[in-house]
Amino acid sequence: MPEHIVTSFDAELELLRSKIAEMGGVAEKMLDDSTRALVRRDSALARQVIEADSRLDNLQREVEENAVATIARRQPVAVDLRDIVSAIRVAGDVERIGDLAKNTSKRVLAISSEAHPAKIVVGVQHMSDLVQAQLKDVLDAYAERNEQKALDVWSRDDRIDALYNSVFRELLTYMMEDTRNITYCTHLLFLAKNIERIGDHTTNIAETIYYVTTGEAVAGERPKGDTTSFTTTGEI
Amino acid sequence: MPEHIVTSFDAELELLRSKIAEMGGVAEKMLDDSTRALVRRDSALARQVIEADSRLDNLQREVEENAVATIARRQPVAVDLRDIVSAIRVAGDVERIGDLAKNTSKRVLAISSEAHPAKIVVGVQHMSDLVQAQLKDVLDAYAERNEQKALDVWSRDDRIDALYNSVFRELLTYMMEDTRNITYCTHLLFLAKNIERIGDHTTNIAETIYYVTTGEAVAGERPKGDTTSFTTTGEI
Repeated sequence: MPEHIVTSFDAELELLRSKIAEMGGVAEKMLDDSTRALVRRDSALARQVIEADSRLDNLQREVEENAVATIARRQPVAVDLRDIVSAIRVAGDVERIGDLAKNTSKRVLAISSEAHPAKIVVGVQHMSDLVQAQLKDVLDAYAERNEQKALDVWSRDDRIDALYNSVFRELLTYMMEDTRNITYCTHLLFLAKNIERIGDHTTNIAETIYYVTTGEAVAGERPKGDTTSFTTTGEI
Repeated sequence: MPEHIVTSFDAELELLRSKIAEMGGVAEKMLDDSTRALVRRDSALARQVIEADSRLDNLQREVEENAVATIARRQPVAVDLRDIVSAIRVAGDVERIGDLAKNTSKRVLAISSEAHPAKIVVGVQHMSDLVQAQLKDVLDAYAERNEQKALDVWSRDDRIDALYNSVFRELLTYMMEDTRNITYCTHLLFLAKNIERIGDHTTNIAETIYYVTTGEAVAGERPKGDTTSFTTTGEI
């Protein structure tokens, strides 16, 4: 939109929303494709994910620039100000989700030719399914400014963390059973961690939605996080 | 500062700078302490790092709130607007650095009682030394708005990435040599990755400084990143 056209405040907000909706669509596809590339050993698909990431980076920059221009021009207060600041935050989270899907795809390329028992990726695939559902729901909640849906996403993050913890332990077991699995499983560990972190970003977005609609922070502690940093040999 | 006191624009910018300087000091200490906690197996020190993180979270929120209020109140343009937006970005990067140091400290607690050859941590310690120097230099560059110093930091990130890649390979070797090292080394892999990511955040800050002072993005590709996502068994 050229700068010299005078737009309404509502149109400026709508533009931010539509850019974030577009970012969300790109990120959802990147996450889905990166997981399918892992399961099917599809290097071409992994490369598509890597290429898609620059679109997200550009959109994030546009959201940030538009949001700052709107704040300076309109001097919004209360819910309108929260709405615009939230757009910057959500765009940041979605951009990070894209980065993580991109990194996942790079690892898929690295291990695509290595032999491994098919069962090893099952846990990671299941994690990805859960996180994709979370991402879809939180993007819907953002589009609708629906804090109840956002709270649902927020409270479901512990399922992903629990699954990540079990995948982490399972992968260590495969490594101990057969040292030839170590390189493959190490990449899967980082890949599973990427997916767990995408889950954390959906939780961040849920918190932002709650803040926009209510003006308050989510009450209570965030759902229990990744506990593998406390995993010792004795506990496995 | 109470809201009803009319402050000068310069005083508002100065407040942002001082809050970010404070954040930088906290993050530097967290990174240093988390590494010393690893090397000395000092659980008390690791716990101090974990507790320090909430201070960074609060400061980041204050920077964001003050910056948005200043944009709405002053409607700054050009370099002043870039200065304020950059404060939000830099605070975000420093807060993430604190999160990574905190995660490192949690892993230190998890592995503090496990036996392992002392040489295993040497590479990680060396990485941390390099990243601490980068962090110090980029915070100085930000305080001085010195884009040359910022570019120096930016171009030195490849040394950290090279060291990370060598630490990654070394740790895989220890795991393959003796499966009893697997749990310890897995934590060190994530810990080394945390430090590498802290290096990436110092590079982000350097790019922000360059943008503030020149109004331009850094020319050229970012220094070569972590290539371990391309590491296969064959290459080790």
